[in-house]
Amino acid sequence: MLIRLRHGLASAELDPLLKLCRDLGYGTRFLDEGRRLLELAGQGDRTHRTRLEDHPDVVEVVAPGDSYELHARGGGRPDTVVRIGDVAFGGGDVAIAAGPCSVEDYERLLLLARGVQDCGVSILRGGAFKPRTSPYSFQGLGVIGLEMLAAVRDETGIAIVTEVLDPRDVERVAEVADWIQIGTRSATNFPLLTEVGRAGKPVLLKRGFGATVREFLLSAEYVLNAGNEDVVLCERGVRSFDSTTRNLLDVGAVAHLAAATHLPVIVDPSHAAGRADLVRPLARAGLAAGADGLIIEVHDDPATAQSDGEQAISLEDLRALTLDAKAIVSLDGRVLSDRSLTSPAHPSNAKESIQ
Amino acid sequence: MLIRLRHGLASAELDPLLKLCRDLGYGTRFLDEGRRLLELAGQGDRTHRTRLEDHPDVVEVVAPGDSYELHARGGGRPDTVVRIGDVAFGGGDVAIAAGPCSVEDYERLLLLARGVQDCGVSILRGGAFKPRTSPYSFQGLGVIGLEMLAAVRDETGIAIVTEVLDPRDVERVAEVADWIQIGTRSATNFPLLTEVGRAGKPVLLKRGFGATVREFLLSAEYVLNAGNEDVVLCERGVRSFDSTTRNLLDVGAVAHLAAATHLPVIVDPSHAAGRADLVRPLARAGLAAGADGLIIEVHDDPATAQSDGEQAISLEDLRALTLDAKAIVSLDGRVLSDRSLTSPAHPSNAKESIQ
Amino acid sequence: MLIRLRHGLASAELDPLLKLCRDLGYGTRFLDEGRRLLELAGQGDRTHRTRLEDHPDVVEVVAPGDSYELHARGGGRPDTVVRIGDVAFGGGDVAIAAGPCSVEDYERLLLLARGVQDCGVSILRGGAFKPRTSPYSFQGLGVIGLEMLAAVRDETGIAIVTEVLDPRDVERVAEVADWIQIGTRSATNFPLLTEVGRAGKPVLLKRGFGATVREFLLSAEYVLNAGNEDVVLCERGVRSFDSTTRNLLDVGAVAHLAAATHLPVIVDPSHAAGRADLVRPLARAGLAAGADGLIIEVHDDPATAQSDGEQAISLEDLRALTLDAKAIVSLDGRVLSDRSLTSPAHPSNAKESIQ
Amino acid sequence: MLIRLRHGLASAELDPLLKLCRDLGYGTRFLDEGRRLLELAGQGDRTHRTRLEDHPDVVEVVAPGDSYELHARGGGRPDTVVRIGDVAFGGGDVAIAAGPCSVEDYERLLLLARGVQDCGVSILRGGAFKPRTSPYSFQGLGVIGLEMLAAVRDETGIAIVTEVLDPRDVERVAEVADWIQIGTRSATNFPLLTEVGRAGKPVLLKRGFGATVREFLLSAEYVLNAGNEDVVLCERGVRSFDSTTRNLLDVGAVAHLAAATHLPVIVDPSHAAGRADLVRPLARAGLAAGADGLIIEVHDDPATAQSDGEQAISLEDLRALTLDAKAIVSLDGRVLSDRSLTSPAHPSNAKESIQ
Repeated sequence: MLIRLRHGLASAELDPLLKLCRDLGYGTRFLDEGRRLLELAGQGDRTHRTRLEDHPDVVEVVAPGDSYELHARGGGRPDTVVRIGDVAFGGGDVAIAAGPCSVEDYERLLLLARGVQDCGVSILRGGAFKPRTSPYSFQGLGVIGLEMLAAVRDETGIAIVTEVLDPRDVERVAEVADWIQIGTRSATNFPLLTEVGRAGKPVLLKRGFGATVREFLLSAEYVLNAGNEDVVLCERGVRSFDSTTRNLLDVGAVAHLAAATHLPVIVDPSHAAGRADLVRPLARAGLAAGADGLIIEVHDDPATAQSDGEQAISLEDLRALTLDAKAIVSLDGRVLSDRSLTSPAHPSNAKESIQ
Repeated sequence: MLIRLRHGLASAELDPLLKLCRDLGYGTRFLDEGRRLLELAGQGDRTHRTRLEDHPDVVEVVAPGDSYELHARGGGRPDTVVRIGDVAFGGGDVAIAAGPCSVEDYERLLLLARGVQDCGVSILRGGAFKPRTSPYSFQGLGVIGLEMLAAVRDETGIAIVTEVLDPRDVERVAEVADWIQIGTRSATNFPLLTEVGRAGKPVLLKRGFGATVREFLLSAEYVLNAGNEDVVLCERGVRSFDSTTRNLLDVGAVAHLAAATHLPVIVDPSHAAGRADLVRPLARAGLAAGADGLIIEVHDDPATAQSDGEQAISLEDLRALTLDAKAIVSLDGRVLSDRSLTSPAHPSNAKESIQ
Repeated sequence: MLIRLRHGLASAELDPLLKLCRDLGYGTRFLDEGRRLLELAGQGDRTHRTRLEDHPDVVEVVAPGDSYELHARGGGRPDTVVRIGDVAFGGGDVAIAAGPCSVEDYERLLLLARGVQDCGVSILRGGAFKPRTSPYSFQGLGVIGLEMLAAVRDETGIAIVTEVLDPRDVERVAEVADWIQIGTRSATNFPLLTEVGRAGKPVLLKRGFGATVREFLLSAEYVLNAGNEDVVLCERGVRSFDSTTRNLLDVGAVAHLAAATHLPVIVDPSHAAGRADLVRPLARAGLAAGADGLIIEVHDDPATAQSDGEQAISLEDLRALTLDAKAIVSLDGRVLSDRSLTSPAHPSNAKESIQ
Repeated sequence: MLIRLRHGLASAELDPLLKLCRDLGYGTRFLDEGRRLLELAGQGDRTHRTRLEDHPDVVEVVAPGDSYELHARGGGRPDTVVRIGDVAFGGGDVAIAAGPCSVEDYERLLLLARGVQDCGVSILRGGAFKPRTSPYSFQGLGVIGLEMLAAVRDETGIAIVTEVLDPRDVERVAEVADWIQIGTRSATNFPLLTEVGRAGKPVLLKRGFGATVREFLLSAEYVLNAGNEDVVLCERGVRSFDSTTRNLLDVGAVAHLAAATHLPVIVDPSHAAGRADLVRPLARAGLAAGADGLIIEVHDDPATAQSDGEQAISLEDLRALTLDAKAIVSLDGRVLSDRSLTSPAHPSNAKESIQ
């Protein structure tokens, strides 16, 4: 039997519960560092379960055969809807985030933020801490980059999604980000997942490029189990033997996740494609398979983009893509949270004004 | 320099051309068994190319640097449109084929043929020769299966697509099939590709489950080079480390192929998913990525299907899927060749009557 | 229940057996084109099995739960030892085949045959029919290549292994080859596997580059079920996401196969590595994992090899590799069938079969 | 141009150097958080390089075209030999580490430590912090586990290798571990790699299960660039489409790494195989391909092992495996650091006494 405890119990609060369990004849063992999951060993009485469920410090009791995973759709569990700024993911709401790969220059970042807003996008992506395969590649501006993101948000009202790599940076990132990203290279960084789960901000969890769908869901489970229910999953392609696209976008995973979990699922066609010309068809495919949103890499300057942004699309292409998205998701009665194209005068009411 | 020769030249016709090449100072070597591709070794004169191009037995002369691959979009080369019975793939026309995995029983096959026609589908798929991983699995009814397919076509007017495995069976299959399928397990069966290329019937070429996109195109090139231009490519998923879906549907490949070749590309969501519940979202994703059609496995009997048809969908689901398809392809101005929903009384005019 | 019948029964011989089965209350269906596997449907009497097993046309009766696959190690089934010319694979005998990728020039082929013999190798590999990804690559000399191989064998006494691609060529290839190769691209060419199974010559079956180990064994099963027991399996690397080596040599598969099947297993380090400098360590690894032999690509001319043979090793390297092989296999009491380096005067002491 | 600076420079020390660079006309940018890699932008004078190389705070100057990666074999760079306790990896020395998957019980750990010592193994592996795919699996004993490992070391003199997951735990782990492990799930945890690189203890770096060989080397580069030269690489298998083994052991990577880097490379056959019966052949294959050592999972209790240790081998099997290893590495003149079989009375002289 597993007991899921309330978040943040002090030792003094735990001790009476542990004593109770032992008095009932169970061996006890905590499964997690945060001491929220208590395993009871031994064959107890049928009445024990109810008794434990009634205990004030107990959130849930799971017996063998129960579905105890927090990501799973239980009987009639409604879709989780994750709200970021003006828009929402899940439950029929579809939204788009867009922005540059990394934050490098305040003026360009501001320009891009306004540019994506003009396309009806209310969330700006941009990396301050960049995970780089080589230590000799630019690792991002770090705290300075965070400050630029905060300034752009203040200036424009756009929401910010940005990545965190190190559990020691979670607090700083959470101060700036409306939505904290766990990148593909951190998908099995369990201390980071747990720390982000405690940060009190919605999480964007990317699938590991070598992770199975089951492992992806269990990475999400680390965040959920740490007490954070606002998790958006992101399929961004997996490794394969072919190099036509940088990664192979797994639309079957998107369709499966839409059925298997109540969490929203979005698609990152930019990192899947690795080339700008395929971003739009992959975005369309992801939404048609059931994705609740997109995250897109854009640039403002085609000339520069030729050298360093082969997968970033232009703002014009972003605009075309949002129109595509609007049309596709409307086919099954979903709505693109598309603020500028509806009621730009009332950004904070964007959700209401769509219908 | 490469010379592509006319199809079916006799030795007596070839000899004068070979002599000419040698007189011009070249070594000669045929690259293919069918002696259509003649390699000339040596540095010749610039005038030779024109002279050879003017030769009546020469189709094309390719010099280093030329794009000589027949699948490639050249300058302004229009889409190849492949017509199968009433419908067409490519050039804005989208169509669907549907039917059982294998042909086993005439009455059920007839029922299914009428069922898919009622859904607006004009092409029946069904295997008479089945490639099976184990020699102890049912290998199909063979010639008897072909006869059933022919009888169903005569009875209903539906077009037939069926697989051939053995170069020695190509002629027999070509007598019955309106469209000859090369399955994923035959993607590198080069003698079969060549034989099918000579059969004078349109070809449905499935991607090998372990083949790169480049290898897929070169398999098509074997058929094209044998003189057959009516090739439809079919993405049906590739192998990956994950088992959520049986194969990983590569929508990036679909999008790439739509740009890279003039040949139509369709998607087989049934074999990609391996489970009925994901067929519809994968079909949608494929079309949204740019596919020119679908091939779908259906069953008529949910009870039986529980045991042997876990990836086959019902006729009702097929109907829903065709409506989805119609809506998605219309977003970019394409048309689903959907005969029953338009003008069932005049099947041969179906193309004209589609809105 | 499955009944495996004698090879080559005429219809007149089959009819009484089929009648008997139906009289016993079974439905009957042949599972294979060659009509050797008869499936009986229905719940019969326990005595029926014995009665059928005693029937003169019946080789074996398989009931649910039996292991009926011919490749499997049954209770105490000894290793299959496949003899090719002087040497043997399996049962403690290890051997090496070596030669050029393709047959192009008689003089060079003869030189290489003598060269590999000088290294103690008694089997020459060389392709007359070449499976090529592109139709515009050299497809081999075909019948002329076979004639060169036959001539070299007559001249030197070396045994020949060469590939067949087309079921229509099996007879011709079997006339020349001591050992018929099914290449990685033909691993799921079931008509070819069946035809080669009937050819009466030992078979070298390469694993498909995208095939699971289970599928590999079932490809072998097609050959075995066609009546040919002399099958040597060859692991040659599978596709992966990394390109350090051309294919990823699966030594785990080698170790598993050594335990799971009585058939000998060899390794092709040349096609796995795709680069000459890694052939030797991969050969060593394969043998250390339990492989019963090697097949190696060699060249005679380092200068030419620079352009077209990046994975072929020199004869000097082959000599070093055979010494390595001898040492490694001796660690577990196996013997390299190494004619020149052992004791040609006492062939009966070199495991009987050498020379 | 890149400048690699001395480790641990204070800001006050950096400023004069930065000023110098700017005075010479360069833009300056640090590429890493630790500020050891300074990028100079701009076309300077040829004399600048020498001038900077002579600067006391500069370790190295790298110009375009230079090989600046620390893992690479430069001209004549000798093998790095990493010493752990009595034994060494690299430069002809081969060693083995063995132990349980996780630390759970002091008595059993002590028993196993003595057991592996009896087999001649001088390094004990055992996890205190366990990366687990599910948050509901046992995550290790953490600090208590570290204390057990320390106690066993004190009791037996065995060296300890154990994993660290969280950069905040590096200091604690480094106090106990003789060798700090970065597991496969942390291969792209760059903050952890950097922190471990500063810890002053040798590092065991496992390849990510989805990482290319190039990415593996760049993960090592993070550790090396942080100032730690004692890195042992560990190949432990990668993901593939087949499930015969849990992971596919990449012996080609081992052979490539042996040539491409001066760092030692070992193999983990236990996690590659995922089943006890294939550990020994995979260990042999790894050493035959050139590996400098092994890390093996063992158990002391076959009965318990049935439930939780399907890939752990018994101590008896470990003994057999060490004898195999000794024999295989001796074939190319390498030596297994095998203390108990030589001079247990003088553990510190183990290396000298082996021959």
